[in-house]
Amino acid sequence: MGEPVPEVVVSGRGASRVRAGHPWVYRSDLLRAAGEAGDVVRVEDRRGRFLGYAFYNPRSEIALRVAERREGVGIDGAWFGSRLRAALEYRAGLGIDGDAYRLLHAEADGVPGLVADVYGEHVVLQVGSAAVERRLELVVRALAELLSPAGVLLRGDAGSRRREGLRRTVAVLHGKVPEAVVVREGPVRYRVPLWRGQKTGAFLDQRENRLAAGRHARGRVLDVFSYGGGFALHAARRAASVEAVDSSAAALEQARENARLNGLGNLSFVEANAFDLLRARSDAGEAYDTVILDPPAFARTRRDLPRAARAYKEINLRAMKLLAPGGVLVTCSCSYHLSREAMEGVLRSAAADAGRSLRVLEWRGQAADHPEVLNIPETRYLKCAVLERLC
Amino acid sequence: MGEPVPEVVVSGRGASRVRAGHPWVYRSDLLRAAGEAGDVVRVEDRRGRFLGYAFYNPRSEIALRVAERREGVGIDGAWFGSRLRAALEYRAGLGIDGDAYRLLHAEADGVPGLVADVYGEHVVLQVGSAAVERRLELVVRALAELLSPAGVLLRGDAGSRRREGLRRTVAVLHGKVPEAVVVREGPVRYRVPLWRGQKTGAFLDQRENRLAAGRHARGRVLDVFSYGGGFALHAARRAASVEAVDSSAAALEQARENARLNGLGNLSFVEANAFDLLRARSDAGEAYDTVILDPPAFARTRRDLPRAARAYKEINLRAMKLLAPGGVLVTCSCSYHLSREAMEGVLRSAAADAGRSLRVLEWRGQAADHPEVLNIPETRYLKCAVLERLC
Repeated sequence: MGEPVPEVVVSGRGASRVRAGHPWVYRSDLLRAAGEAGDVVRVEDRRGRFLGYAFYNPRSEIALRVAERREGVGIDGAWFGSRLRAALEYRAGLGIDGDAYRLLHAEADGVPGLVADVYGEHVVLQVGSAAVERRLELVVRALAELLSPAGVLLRGDAGSRRREGLRRTVAVLHGKVPEAVVVREGPVRYRVPLWRGQKTGAFLDQRENRLAAGRHARGRVLDVFSYGGGFALHAARRAASVEAVDSSAAALEQARENARLNGLGNLSFVEANAFDLLRARSDAGEAYDTVILDPPAFARTRRDLPRAARAYKEINLRAMKLLAPGGVLVTCSCSYHLSREAMEGVLRSAAADAGRSLRVLEWRGQAADHPEVLNIPETRYLKCAVLERLC
Repeated sequence: MGEPVPEVVVSGRGASRVRAGHPWVYRSDLLRAAGEAGDVVRVEDRRGRFLGYAFYNPRSEIALRVAERREGVGIDGAWFGSRLRAALEYRAGLGIDGDAYRLLHAEADGVPGLVADVYGEHVVLQVGSAAVERRLELVVRALAELLSPAGVLLRGDAGSRRREGLRRTVAVLHGKVPEAVVVREGPVRYRVPLWRGQKTGAFLDQRENRLAAGRHARGRVLDVFSYGGGFALHAARRAASVEAVDSSAAALEQARENARLNGLGNLSFVEANAFDLLRARSDAGEAYDTVILDPPAFARTRRDLPRAARAYKEINLRAMKLLAPGGVLVTCSCSYHLSREAMEGVLRSAAADAGRSLRVLEWRGQAADHPEVLNIPETRYLKCAVLERLC
């Protein structure tokens, strides 16, 4: 290894966690620490046994993120190159039909704190680790070698960066990056505002669920929390009509532009609060053949959970009431804190109160380019159920 | 309605359950009952409000199974015909690639206590309700009209029939039914012993998971609990070699015959106890590119759960140890009492003890022709995870 590596000793609890395949060690499990934020450190248990090399940040509650478990392997340019190559190889096997996808999904691809999304010729990064931030030049060089992108953008404007002591920044790291690009997702094209869209520009984790919604949608469709219209566009290709609902006029303008881009004339756009609209439509006895619910995370922390569960139940209950017989509900939750089992409970309780019997057509999760690691429960967060009204 | 219908009054708890979309009422929730085993009865709450028509059996712990919620609709030949037609229509939309599938999945298709599986030209029935048994002539007539099958067989040899007071019987109800037929499942053909195979002859609920295993399998494959070789055959089409392990010589003979039927020469067959074999192979440091675990239900009752969880953990831990880097584990549980979340916990704990990091390639369930109903948790039982060894 090129540079001297500081050593950090962790508690028994921290060591078992790492041995069980989890990369995180909390600050409270550090027994002896050296080095500074952004260092790569050598992690040992109390008896001096090697556990791995980790990204170190004493300011973060997650003080260590283990990145490499093979002793003697340095975290250098070649290391980032090999992680990116393995990540690309995995995506190549997924048969992704489109040109926007997640190339590297942080811990799930062996690089804690780094996300890399491909949008056609461009790559957008999110960084949530001081150690990665300090090595960005290596990341960009490895990316350039692997993909020869036209440009690489750092979207360093997530609020979570503050917890790592990272400053807010959005910057081009390589080549040129336009304000927006048009990407393809199966049969649909949409515009991604790389500099200002949510996260790295779009919610790529819903890619496969949008394609699934496109397969299930028919008749009269209501798409609630439509944002840029991702689900609505896929649904509109098979459905008679789609109403896209969002509380943001800017989001709806984006959705309208995307509808034009796809030559789809059967969408309409409603600026409204989702809860109010769902209640009003269901009180009015309206009926839809397809309802799509893709709300923002109602539970951002564990404490939010009871309130969030009530909110999820409310929108699902209304949506179930709005379904015509044989109608299909596509319903999502991206709250990590609402487990899959808990979401099932919410849906079951909504069905009971709505007096609806529903067949489960599919239980889905995040797209395969956002893989879960069994050993890291935190890598799963997105749930999506496709339900059909029986009676 | 043709015949007079006895009335059964249920408790508040029973009534809420039915209103929440669940078809079962337990004997302890009957307040007033009339009629005899096998009757269709009218179900009311304490205030005389109509809840539905149900299959009644005072001998069974589940004394009522609600079959129809529309008042005035009789359970006659036309009723069975319309249930079967709706079931067939749903299957037609699934794009099933093969000629063996579940046509009607009991409660999930609105006919409690009846299962109908199609094997090419033949239909095999399982009956777990005295009311259905009494109306079998109507069922067979409706089937004959819908599908013109060459034969219909009743497999009335499940142990669970005793709880309904039904006698053990295997009988041809229509046409002719040979001892066995050859069916197709995607690219694979296999022989189904209709009169003597498990359940209705084969485990059709694993159809989609077998196809998935076929897509994931490669290199050196170990298929444990192979039974008639369903998973092994699919795997063998892409893999270098497949070892099929079962404790039953008869099952292995079936698997051997199926391998010949498909012209596959890369399978070998091992008669062994799965636990012993997995331990021996892992102690010997063997490595496989693909391991498949499809054990029988270790937890048949809730009481079995702790012991079953240990057994599931043991086989999965050994299988994980046997995986070469990049290797894939396809692991199933058909125990209803082991929830999906609990199975995840078992797998996570096995991974921790095996010192393996595993990427989740897929979370799967039973095939779509065995649909779940959200309101009836009992309709989900099969879990299947596809995991890839990272390090």
